[in-house]
Amino acid sequence: MHTFSTLSFTPCKTLFQPMARFCCSMAVEEKGLVSYCTKVERNANLEKLQYNYLFPEISVRELRHIKKYPNAKVISLGIGDTTEPIPDIVALSMANYAKSLATPQGYKGYGAEQGNQELKKAIAETFYKDTGIKDSEVFVSDGSQCDISRLQMLFGSNVSIAVQDPSFPAYIDSSVIIGQTGDIEKESGRYQNIVYMECGPRNNFFPDLSKTARTDIIFFCSPNNPTGHASSRKQLEQLVEFAKRNGSIIVYDSAYAVYITDGPRSIYEIPGARKVAIEVSSFSKVAGFTGVRLGWTVVPEELVYSNGFPVINDFNRIVCTCFNGASNVAQAGGLACLSSDGFKAVRSNVDYYKENAEILVNTFTSLGLRVYGGTNAPYVWVHFPGSDSWDMFNEILEKTHIITVPGSGFGPEGREFIRVTAFGHRENILEASERLRSFLS
Amino acid sequence: MHTFSTLSFTPCKTLFQPMARFCCSMAVEEKGLVSYCTKVERNANLEKLQYNYLFPEISVRELRHIKKYPNAKVISLGIGDTTEPIPDIVALSMANYAKSLATPQGYKGYGAEQGNQELKKAIAETFYKDTGIKDSEVFVSDGSQCDISRLQMLFGSNVSIAVQDPSFPAYIDSSVIIGQTGDIEKESGRYQNIVYMECGPRNNFFPDLSKTARTDIIFFCSPNNPTGHASSRKQLEQLVEFAKRNGSIIVYDSAYAVYITDGPRSIYEIPGARKVAIEVSSFSKVAGFTGVRLGWTVVPEELVYSNGFPVINDFNRIVCTCFNGASNVAQAGGLACLSSDGFKAVRSNVDYYKENAEILVNTFTSLGLRVYGGTNAPYVWVHFPGSDSWDMFNEILEKTHIITVPGSGFGPEGREFIRVTAFGHRENILEASERLRSFLS
Repeated sequence: MHTFSTLSFTPCKTLFQPMARFCCSMAVEEKGLVSYCTKVERNANLEKLQYNYLFPEISVRELRHIKKYPNAKVISLGIGDTTEPIPDIVALSMANYAKSLATPQGYKGYGAEQGNQELKKAIAETFYKDTGIKDSEVFVSDGSQCDISRLQMLFGSNVSIAVQDPSFPAYIDSSVIIGQTGDIEKESGRYQNIVYMECGPRNNFFPDLSKTARTDIIFFCSPNNPTGHASSRKQLEQLVEFAKRNGSIIVYDSAYAVYITDGPRSIYEIPGARKVAIEVSSFSKVAGFTGVRLGWTVVPEELVYSNGFPVINDFNRIVCTCFNGASNVAQAGGLACLSSDGFKAVRSNVDYYKENAEILVNTFTSLGLRVYGGTNAPYVWVHFPGSDSWDMFNEILEKTHIITVPGSGFGPEGREFIRVTAFGHRENILEASERLRSFLS
Repeated sequence: MHTFSTLSFTPCKTLFQPMARFCCSMAVEEKGLVSYCTKVERNANLEKLQYNYLFPEISVRELRHIKKYPNAKVISLGIGDTTEPIPDIVALSMANYAKSLATPQGYKGYGAEQGNQELKKAIAETFYKDTGIKDSEVFVSDGSQCDISRLQMLFGSNVSIAVQDPSFPAYIDSSVIIGQTGDIEKESGRYQNIVYMECGPRNNFFPDLSKTARTDIIFFCSPNNPTGHASSRKQLEQLVEFAKRNGSIIVYDSAYAVYITDGPRSIYEIPGARKVAIEVSSFSKVAGFTGVRLGWTVVPEELVYSNGFPVINDFNRIVCTCFNGASNVAQAGGLACLSSDGFKAVRSNVDYYKENAEILVNTFTSLGLRVYGGTNAPYVWVHFPGSDSWDMFNEILEKTHIITVPGSGFGPEGREFIRVTAFGHRENILEASERLRSFLS
């Protein structure tokens, strides 16, 4: 969803290397960087974590490009960040809530850690109608990325996980941080103890489950970021059946589900999912809340550990201990989004981005390229068979001044693809489309 | 800071017991509660975690009391939650920010995970003047409790920790969750592998460091919740010296520091602290932001692990992977709090609560009780030598219809104390004072 920002201070390159023994004294003597080291050992899990160079590297190349072409108008179709104003009805609702905090009647202190009851009810009714999800199974969060980490704290270090390849990096990174993985294998770029489920054109972006090893946890994102593929009902039925057979728990990320036109928008539309699946989701791409920060997680009561203990009880404990509820102002905005008029208004922004996606899909398709995603997702996944994604990134940037995202940043299976975001002002999308047509045709 | 809410569904009591082997089939056969169990083992760390019954138990007793005395006007001096409206200037700033999100010029998507640059600068200037703390060392959060858990993810399971006894339960609970502790010892109520630093009247609420075992991490809260004791400069110098000698890292919780009239408000006022201390803090009790959710954490560049690697680099990675920044609306409010007029206004609320504290201190003192805290903190810690804190809780509730907090909920050293909060409307504080005077005199 987001970049890894680099800090403004200059870190000592040598200190980034795993230098186990004399590094402190070396640092003190040679570099004058530090005059004293604590005796606390660096967390070995963080030592395993590879520096995610994707977005910082894109920034570096963008800056270099701007230096080379100071007059070029660079268009970013890179980071998937919403660009359109949030609807008045939603903004006003937050504004009124904030103003009321200055009054004796309107002031509110701590809310429930699990979220405002009205909002939980509205989420259950809006997104989980007829699936049997209850208000009490909805936990309001400050965004799905944050809850993915809280879910990792819930599971602990002794579980095994599977992820789609390619996928949003937070699943793997949080897994490494919590200690579920081994070291990274340099050649494959893959961590030990993680099952990578390859998803590409040859398997219709759905893993071959007959060849997929059992894991405790299966992270599954639909529509997928970056491929934009929304799994069909049949595919999700297979996934639920697979989890059930293996006794696995699916963590289903539906952050982009509102972009789905045809097909299930929640894992709970699949019979039996309540026993095997947690769902994380977000207002970020529904309502342009990337900066406002609001999301939710559903943990059904029927989901239990091998000893029969309900997962929801432990998740509730994590939420109470490690979180203290989403901002009440953001929650007021979320509630407004789910009112009848509010939802129409946010849907209209979603439709706008979907039109952008259509323009981009048509552009690439008209150029003879194979394009995936874009119809049920705000991401377009463009295939350049036989090419390297960084080369394509460079070539597109050089010739069109457009920033994209090299697919390999999301996993080895992305190496022949670039991801193009449909989040953007229409005039930029149209201009990008023109530039691409003249460059690639 | 907050209660552990109980879920609205009724959990099966038997499932709460650690039943390792046949619990799933038992649950299926005997109870009809679940028809299927996954094969995922419950996180053993969560199994160790004791149910924190403190606030739920208080609620149960409150409800029972209300049933018994339906006409009584119960006054809560229990949970430490702010009650006074936030200043207009702060509320309006949030309202205006929210409204501007509906305009093309004012809309903002993702912000920096580390927080808005202006806010970081204002935090550094307001709270860390002359201590050498730089903007880039400040990480804006959604509250100190959340960052305590992120710090535990940073440290991982292989560190040892020390906590004050009594103390706010989140340090210990997050330590158990991340796997730093052994089991709880039933008799002492203490977890193995945690060093409990006793803080009471006989040591002026500061641990005897000559008898304190070395740990990697030392959680230290000043002013302390629940005792209200603000450590003196001399005490903090000893603490920094102790950490330095042992190569430990102090996690200094200064969430209540704005209540300090005399003495250091930040650990960084102590020379050398930059090399040994992280500071977590919050707008909750500064500005009544308990529901708005905003805090910060400072990680100095000079703080390095035993191998010379800067802690700030790893914390930055945690913030980028496990968090995505505090709500931009809340951050706009935070910035307004730190403007010249804004800070005057929030200080006036702090002064109001401090006057409440003075009223409570005078009340208990005039009754011949020994009272601690209250002068540099919004909590008053009342000593009932030889009594049990739950008995005192019951007696006060029965006779005065006032809810307090039994000190034993914060650790064994609190067993003869009750905590009384100074957060409340003045008329309630005054009425509580009268009731206490007539009951206890």
